[in-house]
Amino acid sequence: MIETIRELAKKTDEKILMVVLDGIGGLPMDIDGDTELASAKTPNMDALAALSQLGQTELVAPGITPGSGPGHLGLFGYDPLKFLVGRGALSAVGIGVKLNAGDVAVRGNFATLGGDRIVMDRRAGRPSDEKNAEVVAQLKEVIKEIDGIPVEIYTESEHRFVVVFRSLGTPLGANLSDVDPQETGVQPMTAVAHDEASQTTAQLVNSFVTQAEAALKGDGQVNGVLFRGYSDVPHFPSFDDIYKLRAACIASYPMYKGLASLVGMDVLEVAGEEDALSGKVETLKKNWGEYDFFYFHIKKTDSTGEDGDFAAKVKKIELFDALLPELLALEPDVLCIVGDHSTPSKLATHSWHPVPLLIRSKYGRKDLAQRYTEDEALKGSLGLRRGIDIMPLLMANALKLQKYGA
Amino acid sequence: MIETIRELAKKTDEKILMVVLDGIGGLPMDIDGDTELASAKTPNMDALAALSQLGQTELVAPGITPGSGPGHLGLFGYDPLKFLVGRGALSAVGIGVKLNAGDVAVRGNFATLGGDRIVMDRRAGRPSDEKNAEVVAQLKEVIKEIDGIPVEIYTESEHRFVVVFRSLGTPLGANLSDVDPQETGVQPMTAVAHDEASQTTAQLVNSFVTQAEAALKGDGQVNGVLFRGYSDVPHFPSFDDIYKLRAACIASYPMYKGLASLVGMDVLEVAGEEDALSGKVETLKKNWGEYDFFYFHIKKTDSTGEDGDFAAKVKKIELFDALLPELLALEPDVLCIVGDHSTPSKLATHSWHPVPLLIRSKYGRKDLAQRYTEDEALKGSLGLRRGIDIMPLLMANALKLQKYGA
Repeated sequence: MIETIRELAKKTDEKILMVVLDGIGGLPMDIDGDTELASAKTPNMDALAALSQLGQTELVAPGITPGSGPGHLGLFGYDPLKFLVGRGALSAVGIGVKLNAGDVAVRGNFATLGGDRIVMDRRAGRPSDEKNAEVVAQLKEVIKEIDGIPVEIYTESEHRFVVVFRSLGTPLGANLSDVDPQETGVQPMTAVAHDEASQTTAQLVNSFVTQAEAALKGDGQVNGVLFRGYSDVPHFPSFDDIYKLRAACIASYPMYKGLASLVGMDVLEVAGEEDALSGKVETLKKNWGEYDFFYFHIKKTDSTGEDGDFAAKVKKIELFDALLPELLALEPDVLCIVGDHSTPSKLATHSWHPVPLLIRSKYGRKDLAQRYTEDEALKGSLGLRRGIDIMPLLMANALKLQKYGA
Repeated sequence: MIETIRELAKKTDEKILMVVLDGIGGLPMDIDGDTELASAKTPNMDALAALSQLGQTELVAPGITPGSGPGHLGLFGYDPLKFLVGRGALSAVGIGVKLNAGDVAVRGNFATLGGDRIVMDRRAGRPSDEKNAEVVAQLKEVIKEIDGIPVEIYTESEHRFVVVFRSLGTPLGANLSDVDPQETGVQPMTAVAHDEASQTTAQLVNSFVTQAEAALKGDGQVNGVLFRGYSDVPHFPSFDDIYKLRAACIASYPMYKGLASLVGMDVLEVAGEEDALSGKVETLKKNWGEYDFFYFHIKKTDSTGEDGDFAAKVKKIELFDALLPELLALEPDVLCIVGDHSTPSKLATHSWHPVPLLIRSKYGRKDLAQRYTEDEALKGSLGLRRGIDIMPLLMANALKLQKYGA
């Protein structure tokens, strides 16, 4: 399909704004209750929804819970079952680290280990970014290379960091098992190579874990490391190539910037802390004339869902609603509001549930949906779409796709 | 997709109960009338539907009328356009006959032939199982081998029997045309091989027809045989392998047991005649602790539809509704009610119409559908799903699928 879109796409002046409310889909806490979106007071989104087309999207496939990478790839039109990218590579690119062929990037979590190396907290109590940077500095002192292979360690945010193992000619494999057991009450796992090329990488990872625990053993909270998501360097056809779009990313968390960068978007500077809402809006306004496509990412709708904090997620939705008029004032030709997956507070993690999808353009049909909520989306005219169907719909609404066939 | 599910599936304690109401989808006799489901008084299903998610499913593809084999394969998550299994193989496995590579199993119907071999009744007036066994015994006396190839004949039920041609080294092909003309008023057809490997099989089949008619010519009702569904021995990845589910089949008709067995389910004993409703419930209760997945099959909703008996189908639906509380009392974590295809009484045969789909779990969204009927299913939140999407949705609702990608 991406090949067909590439052939049909044409450059026009129309501008597309894709707002991704991370993890926006939710669940009622009780079956007859309201979801986070339905509970939120969203006068601006309500007014917009009445003039828009609504529907739902499943980013990867029915029943499949998308990770952030596959969820976003779906949104950007790259079939996440075909285009695979490891979280390590995403994170590395997101913090501006250039990866070369043969290198392996690994996503790490700082963790709290108890007696006998039992994992007590897989996120080490979510340390501050400052604390994270301190611990990374401490590790960089001790681990500069392992078995002659250069090792780079980068701070990401909170409990997250990235390790890059630099190939010295022989490509390092990225096909090995996780250290992160994905549950507490058990020990970290030993990484095991799944192929010949990943033997060395497994040794590097296991040695890193041992050395890091030794270096951090004085710390009561941040005293272990967990790895999952090893990745070699992925190659994607670019946004410009496929869609003929000059595209920009406005996000504040590294992984999302990394992903946007992998598909060829310019990653714009955003001023401010954490989700930096007003900084993002400023960046959007300032760069509005320069691009045809903006990917505008809001993170905290997901983080609050992952914390299982229903009220906080509702609040984050309302905060987005409050800044919506500033986005509308820019008069995008096509505006899309969507998420990369659901993160119901009830589950406190990503889920498989479809995400509401809103598209506003001059070329929409009348639609019964009156709010951007899961319930109302069912009444929408867009139906239930796969993630990869969204970009063609946005391109079409921007009159950027030529007729297929004569 | 099945490969992705295999990678994501994990073993948990949650239990899934999939109730298959065979041929459940229907049609109104007049366009403004009610379907069988809508006409039935189903207080228990109604109460359940109000707390469940509804939708519809097409088991194979839009417009395609599923046979029971493909319909069930879809329900079990095996793409029926890719995983092919002949009805003969299903029936053979269902009655406990072990097939070896190279053998061919053939599904037969006893028929009533009139003068000049014209087919008067393709089911020979649906003889009793006892009569069926007598006729099979009679045929076994005369047909033990044909051209040196061993021939086994098995009774199934009513008008159905199974023939197995045993390979003597050279594999027998199963690519040949039917003997069953699928209509009355014409002669049985001569089987024609579609490839070299099936030449011998075609000769065996045609010779069997001739010999059987000679042996049965004294019987006014059961005096002919019709064949369709030739099959060699299929291989499937197992339910346990893909889904990590210890799965059990509770069904009373051979074909369904055979299919369940092919995908690796344990086929449990059911006491009782025909649909054996109370026997099935007893078996379910007795084995509830032993399995993670139950396939619970109800046949008579289809048989009555095939007879074109609207009122009888309504009655069978109401009989199922009456035993639903016993299923609910077991508190399955995920309950699914679905069919393997529609069998509208108006058509008196399988049809292409979507089948209502109901899923109840703790993780559903509110939904406007209030009954398990074709009309109400349109208001549901699940939308219109392919058959093979159902298992991933059930697995997700049972929290048995890990996140896809980081």
